[in-house]
This record gives sequence, C-alpha cells and structure tokens, in this order.
Amino acid sequence: MDFNGSHILSIDQFDRSDIDQLFSVANDLEPFSLRKKVTRVLEGAILGNMFFEPSTRTRISFGAAFNMLGGAVRETSEVGSSSLVKGESLIDTAKVLSSYSDIIVMRHPDEGSVKSFSEASRVPVINGGDGSNEHPTQALLDLYTIKKELETQKKTMDGLRIALVGDLKFGRAAHSLIKALCLYKDVSINLISPEELRLPDSYLTLLAKAGVKITQSENLEEGIAEVDIIYMTRIQEERFKNKSHAKKYKGLLSLNNEIYTANCEPNTVIMHPLPRDSRKEANELDSDLYENPNLAIFRQADNGVVIRMALFTLVLGVADQVHMTARDVNWQTSKRH
Amino acid sequence: MDFNGSHILSIDQFDRSDIDQLFSVANDLEPFSLRKKVTRVLEGAILGNMFFEPSTRTRISFGAAFNMLGGAVRETSEVGSSSLVKGESLIDTAKVLSSYSDIIVMRHPDEGSVKSFSEASRVPVINGGDGSNEHPTQALLDLYTIKKELETQKKTMDGLRIALVGDLKFGRAAHSLIKALCLYKDVSINLISPEELRLPDSYLTLLAKAGVKITQSENLEEGIAEVDIIYMTRIQEERFKNKSHAKKYKGLLSLNNEIYTANCEPNTVIMHPLPRDSRKEANELDSDLYENPNLAIFRQADNGVVIRMALFTLVLGVADQVHMTARDVNWQTSKRH
Amino acid sequence: MDFNGSHILSIDQFDRSDIDQLFSVANDLEPFSLRKKVTRVLEGAILGNMFFEPSTRTRISFGAAFNMLGGAVRETSEVGSSSLVKGESLIDTAKVLSSYSDIIVMRHPDEGSVKSFSEASRVPVINGGDGSNEHPTQALLDLYTIKKELETQKKTMDGLRIALVGDLKFGRAAHSLIKALCLYKDVSINLISPEELRLPDSYLTLLAKAGVKITQSENLEEGIAEVDIIYMTRIQEERFKNKSHAKKYKGLLSLNNEIYTANCEPNTVIMHPLPRDSRKEANELDSDLYENPNLAIFRQADNGVVIRMALFTLVLGVADQVHMTARDVNWQTSKRH
Repeated sequence: MDFNGSHILSIDQFDRSDIDQLFSVANDLEPFSLRKKVTRVLEGAILGNMFFEPSTRTRISFGAAFNMLGGAVRETSEVGSSSLVKGESLIDTAKVLSSYSDIIVMRHPDEGSVKSFSEASRVPVINGGDGSNEHPTQALLDLYTIKKELETQKKTMDGLRIALVGDLKFGRAAHSLIKALCLYKDVSINLISPEELRLPDSYLTLLAKAGVKITQSENLEEGIAEVDIIYMTRIQEERFKNKSHAKKYKGLLSLNNEIYTANCEPNTVIMHPLPRDSRKEANELDSDLYENPNLAIFRQADNGVVIRMALFTLVLGVADQVHMTARDVNWQTSKRH
Repeated sequence: MDFNGSHILSIDQFDRSDIDQLFSVANDLEPFSLRKKVTRVLEGAILGNMFFEPSTRTRISFGAAFNMLGGAVRETSEVGSSSLVKGESLIDTAKVLSSYSDIIVMRHPDEGSVKSFSEASRVPVINGGDGSNEHPTQALLDLYTIKKELETQKKTMDGLRIALVGDLKFGRAAHSLIKALCLYKDVSINLISPEELRLPDSYLTLLAKAGVKITQSENLEEGIAEVDIIYMTRIQEERFKNKSHAKKYKGLLSLNNEIYTANCEPNTVIMHPLPRDSRKEANELDSDLYENPNLAIFRQADNGVVIRMALFTLVLGVADQVHMTARDVNWQTSKRH
Repeated sequence: MDFNGSHILSIDQFDRSDIDQLFSVANDLEPFSLRKKVTRVLEGAILGNMFFEPSTRTRISFGAAFNMLGGAVRETSEVGSSSLVKGESLIDTAKVLSSYSDIIVMRHPDEGSVKSFSEASRVPVINGGDGSNEHPTQALLDLYTIKKELETQKKTMDGLRIALVGDLKFGRAAHSLIKALCLYKDVSINLISPEELRLPDSYLTLLAKAGVKITQSENLEEGIAEVDIIYMTRIQEERFKNKSHAKKYKGLLSLNNEIYTANCEPNTVIMHPLPRDSRKEANELDSDLYENPNLAIFRQADNGVVIRMALFTLVLGVADQVHMTARDVNWQTSKRH
C-alpha cells in the first residue's frame, strides 16, 4: 500500500510490510507521544475530527495525535447538530466537510458509512469506527502493543499464542485484530466466549485459510493457561437489540489476580480495548490487577496515540520531515507511570 | 465601511465598494484556503465560536477559516450548557465571553440576538445566523460564487439574470442574497416558489426600489429558462410552526438533469446554500446532477471558507500582513475535485 | 507548596506565600491576557479540558488561558458521550485521558471525584469544580480581584471588610472564598442570607479559628453599609433537591443602584461569581448597576483568565520562560471596556 493520500478504511488494506512500515514510523515518533520532544511538522494543517457517534476517548486520541504533530483540529461530536438530520446525504456532507480540512477522521454508527463518505471526500479519510464493522486503528494499536510487549520478552509475532475472551460476536476490536493476526506465522488463538457470543463463522473461515491454530471454549481458566497474551473484551451492550439480554453475559468471563496467578504462565500480558466495564456485575478485569506489571491496558492507550500519529504522517506524506522542526519539550513533564 | 474593529451583523452594512474590497482580499487568500500556502498571521489570536443553535457546517467553516490564518478556536455548540439557562442575560454572556477571545462568531436562534450581544461585546462580533433574520456570510459567499462563476463565462454581476427557487418565505439565505443583489445594475430575478412560500412584501419593495426586474411564479421550467444562475433552496422545515405543514411543499420544486437540459441555457450555474434535502420526498437537486460541471454547490463551500478568512483579516486589520509569514504547504495535498 | 507538577484540587492547598507567588505571576501575565502581547511558551503542549458537567464559561476560560500561552486544547463537554456510561471507572478514565495531554482540567458533578481522578492521573490535574465541593480557581480569581480592587483604593487585604450575600449554604464560590480569606489578618465578614441558606457550621468554625470577625443577618441594607466589597451570589437552583423550593429564595436579596447609593460607602466594590440570574424574579444585581464603575463582575472574568494562565505556567514549570517567546500583538485589538 502507498499510504500517501490514501483512505484508511479497513485492516484489510494492510499487508505485513505495510504494518512493518507503520510500526517503524510509530517507533520513531515515540519521543513525541511520550512528551519528550515537540514537532511542528503539521503546523497549519487541519484535521476534521467528525464523530457522528459519541466516543470521547477515540476522538480525543485522534485529536491529540494531530496536535502533537503541530496541527489544528476542528471537530464535531453531536449527532443531533449534523445536517444529516435535515436530509443531507453522506456524499454532500463529505464534499462540504472536505472543504474545511486536510484530512478527516470519521466515526459513524452505520456499517459501511465511512467508506461511502470517503468515496465523496476530497481529502483522505481515516475510519474511526463504523458501527460493528471496522475500527482499523484499534487493531493496529493492539497489534503494535502485542509486538512491543513480546519484544520485552524476546518473543516475536510469529509464533504468538493469544486468548481472545468475551463478546466475540459483536466485538469489533476482536474482529479487526483477528484479521491482522492472519498476517503472521504459527499463530495460535484460543477463542473464549459464551456459546451465544461465539466468533462468527466468516472469521473462523479466515483463520482457517491463514493456517491459524484455534480452539474454542467457554472456559476461561483453560483458555488462558498457555498463552503470551490475554485479550479481554467488554460485552457490547449497545450492539444488542435487546439490552436486558446483554446482561445475562456480563460477569461470566472475569479475570482477577487469583485466576491469573493460578492459571497463567509468568509474564502473560493482559490487554483490553477499553473501556472496560468495572461495575461489579461485569468486572471483566478486576481492579486487583492494577499493580500487575503485565497489565498493558494503559500502554495500549499510549500506543494508540503514536499509531495515529504515524498514520497521519504517512497519509500526509510528512513522515520524513518530523524531525526537521523537532525540539525538546520545554515544560515540566512529570508523566507518572 | 471601515472593516477594522467592526461588528459584521447584516448584509445591509455593505455597499458595493465594501464588497469589492472583501472579494479582493478573498481572492488574495485563495492559495491559503486551497491548501497551497500556510500563513501564521493570526498566531496567538483566539476566535470564540459561539453556536447557541446547532450548525456543524457553518461552525466548522468559521473555525477552519480561523485556523487557516494561524489562530486558535474556542467554541461551544450546546444550547443546554449555556449559562443562559441559569437566567443569564445576553449582555452578561457577551461581556464575559469577550474576555476570552479576540473576535466572536455567534449563532443564536432568536432574531436580533446577535445584534444585542454585539452591543455588549468588547470584541468584534460576526453574525453566524440569528434565527430567520440574517446570515451575512452566507450572502457574501453566495455573491462571491456568482461573481466567480460569471467571470469564467466572461459575464459580470451587472446584468445578472438569476432564478431563486423554493422556500422564499422563510429562507434566510435567499433574503440576504436579495439584499446584496440590490447593489448591482440591470439585475433580473425570477422568484419561483409555492404561492404560500412567496417572498415577503418587504423584500419585493426593496427590489422594486433598487430597480431590479422581477417575475414571480410557481413554474420551475419557465423560471429557469433564461438565467445565468439557478439558486435552489430547501424548505425550512425547522422554521414552520406546524412541521407536518412543511411536508406538503417538499418535492414540489425539484431540479434534475432532464429538466435542466430541456429548459436551461448552456452553462447555467446551479447553486444551493446547503444542506440540501436529498430524501426522495424532497430532492431539491437530484443526484443525477453530480456530474454536471455547472453544479457549483461544493465550490460555494470552498468560497465560504475564503470569504470568512477575508472577513477575519479585515476586521482584525491584518489583511496586508498575511503574506509576511506565508510559506508553501509541506504536506501532501491531494485535494480531489 | 511547590506548584511544579502538583495537582490543584482545593483552596486548602494554598498558604499565603503560595497565593502571593501566584498573584505575582498573574500580574506579570496581564499583558498577555489583555491581548497586548503574545507568547508561545506552551507551543506543543496539550490541555485535556474535561467537563463532565456543562459549564461553557469556565470551560472556555481555561481553554482560552491555555491558548494564550500557545498551547493546544482537546476537550469534552458531554456527559453522555463519556465511557463512564459504559461502566468505566474514574481511575481508568484518568489513566487513559492522561495519555492524551500534558495537563488536565476536570469538572465533574460528584464531590471528591476530581481528587480520585487525580490520584490515577499521570499528569497534573486542576479541579474545575466538583459538585458543591471545591472550585479553587474561582476562589483564587475572586481573591485576586479583591486584592486589585483594594489596591486602586490604597487598601490591603489585611483589614478587609466584606459582605457575602445570597445562597451561603450551597454556594461553592462563597465557601472557597471564605477559606481563602482565613489566610489574611483583621478580616470582617458580614454573612447575609435567608435563614435556611445560612453558611454551614463547619465554615463558621473555620472563620472563628482564623480570628475572622463575622456578623450574620438576613438584612441586605445593614450588611452592606460598612464594607469594602459586596460579594453577591446566585441561588444555586441546580443543587436543590426540590427545585420549586429554590424559587422561594429568589429575589429576596437583590441589589440595585438605589439600595447601593442609600447604604454603601463610596467606591464599595460589587462582585459576583457569575452567572447572575437576571430574570425579574431573581435579579440579584439590577441592570441599573451596569454604569456603576465599582461593578467589578466583568473584571472578575478577565482576572479568571490570567489566574488560570498563572496556574498553568507554575504547574508546568514555565513561568520564567513566558517572556522568551513574547512579542507584541500584530492584529487590531480594539477591546472595549
């Protein structure tokens, strides 16, 4: 893939060398996301951060990534204020909004909407999530996190053993990650979910084609026993037609320090796409795991910023200019970890 | 008019030389709005983008225009969060908000509210639309678009023949445009609307005084036959007291390629203040016109940005400084058209 | 207190020398807040302006203060869009949001929430108001205003005579101001409120311990007779469980020009934390006071910006760098007063 000027709509666009290129740029940008250095490479550029479905965290992550490159952000987060309610087509919205910015990030509740939007857009569009369809930057940041966590243990992506736990039916993050994992060799995946929330067959077919070894079960303890990574997910309540139906699955698959210690290999990494539901009845990851150094969930958030920075610089063709206007941060960075 | 430090509240403030001055500055700013050049002329300045009525498109157009000049934007788009609900007067709101910025754009649902606000404001205020009263930047961008489209056909504003179509009773954009057209010579306007949505008498009087030739009818085909510009508008559903009443007018005046080809002179320009209602029952401009090069609706959006940039530079007195900090854009601008 | 890297959660953190230091920095920053000078000292830094309760004015004041220092602002103002509704804990929210910024301002309806948030945050947090608990920057800007207003009359904070009027039960601004006033010598406070909205006993105890002279009454005319400052407050309707109950107190304590002239010493300063309720039935400060030069309420808004700028520079450790990148404003500043 030539990133330059491309829309980023799906994890399917990426082959292994694309991902290697993206991760190399991301690695190079870490001093900026970790607030050690400042760059003005995108000074004067404008991101249109268009969220037609609320998502504080993803919206701010994209916006902050653009600011960290020196660019400005214009945004919307209100479905109700959109001209869409006055009967405007996505095509018109795209044409008009692309008069106002150099690149657009779009989130929208309807599957396929971001692709339609991108076809009319006059500037590159990055999919920030379209319903239960795609959320490619989530998959990329998850993959980047896995790679980095494995590296500290001198392991590689090839040979990865991972457990995917929770709502594998509606969980967009898990779906996109699965697609990305198909690019690597000798991967084994343990799929752990309630029977009714099993991974859809289409994804099972993909995994089979890619030669990924899979197991499926409802048993957390067994599934997490011999893996490098545990990837927990939230029951996607908002995707259920019947919300009370969602409740019956909450809390079924819950990881805490006791279960972890009793079952996992040392240094098994714990991930979650966040937000995690910390209410007692759900509690996917117990708070007694906060002190566990293998809990990588907040490192994922950090990695999200740097992956989005890397995408912006590649799509706008400035990856090799970042250091030209770089300087050390001049304020007190007391970032606690 | 001396733009410097002035409030921009109404199209009535502008005489022909003011408009000429504004359009000359706008023309000079096009390399910036078209993302060929970047300037930092307003670096350090703050726009207070105060939208007390939702309008994603206009809000972002103003904000982007300010960003393109190097300035920062603080904004609100939530009626509910305003102190107005705690009983604060517009005067207080104006006094306080003008502590926070160098210039304010304000949209508010109440007619006359922006003028009241401006009287208390300590910084210049630009009207971003006050109910069905005024929206001067829309009229200015429409006029700028007409001028530019005519120029490509070696025509001038004097002698303009234009058809205004749709909701001429509530359509604020049409009202302001009509006022602006009164400044030019030998203008002919065909007013085409359902009987009940005819242009109010006060505007007819204005047009008569200015010596504008007018026809009024309900017949689209005849009205668009011998004009340079067709200006379509949306039925302003939200201004109707009885919304179901609005529905009966939807779809009555609908332009598509067949009607266009059968009736119009070659190169008749099609405009619309947007958003247009693309639902089947309304469909003011059919999607089969997308490929028609005379469809100028997205060029209007581009022109909106540059007109707003021009206003900001004139009101803040920096029009002659824009090029001092200018440089070429350093990122990939793949703006598709 | 060492400001550098500290959370600013409560007025209790400040001793008199801290306040002196803050006010000295604020004074130094006035050319910037008054738009005479521009600085880029925080260029590249990001403020996370997290408002989980609506407050247009406070949100924009903090954001503008950060912009005036050259920094960028990412923000949220929507309770509904927060991951909190998906069951996320404040701890997780804090950890994640602190990946996206260098400093966070947080407002939240729950008492103590900002403190909990700050304990998990990896960057400094400034309390922008947590329910009826604390709003330290309001107290600091009020105190700064009192100091400056007294100075023009050659008076000092020591020896201050002040009347606090209105809802002293729920009024957070009054509570925090009272704590701050305890740091000064020979202070006298007249507490004027309806019997049911009297200052809570805990604050009376504080005042007694600090040696502050107090009187309590329901009589406005007497209470404002011999003071330097009248500090009016709004009935905090939104803090009442029964909102209709709040109505009965509205309009009981209302100051206008006639009452002022008949009772006050010359040059008695009138303050209000704003917003003030200007509806007839409330009308805490009558509009006939607009022309009274002792009405300091809009100077308070100006002072709010400069106090917030001072806090940002101290917490981020750049107070001594502000002038390094300073220059004169290059646009027309016609700030009317």
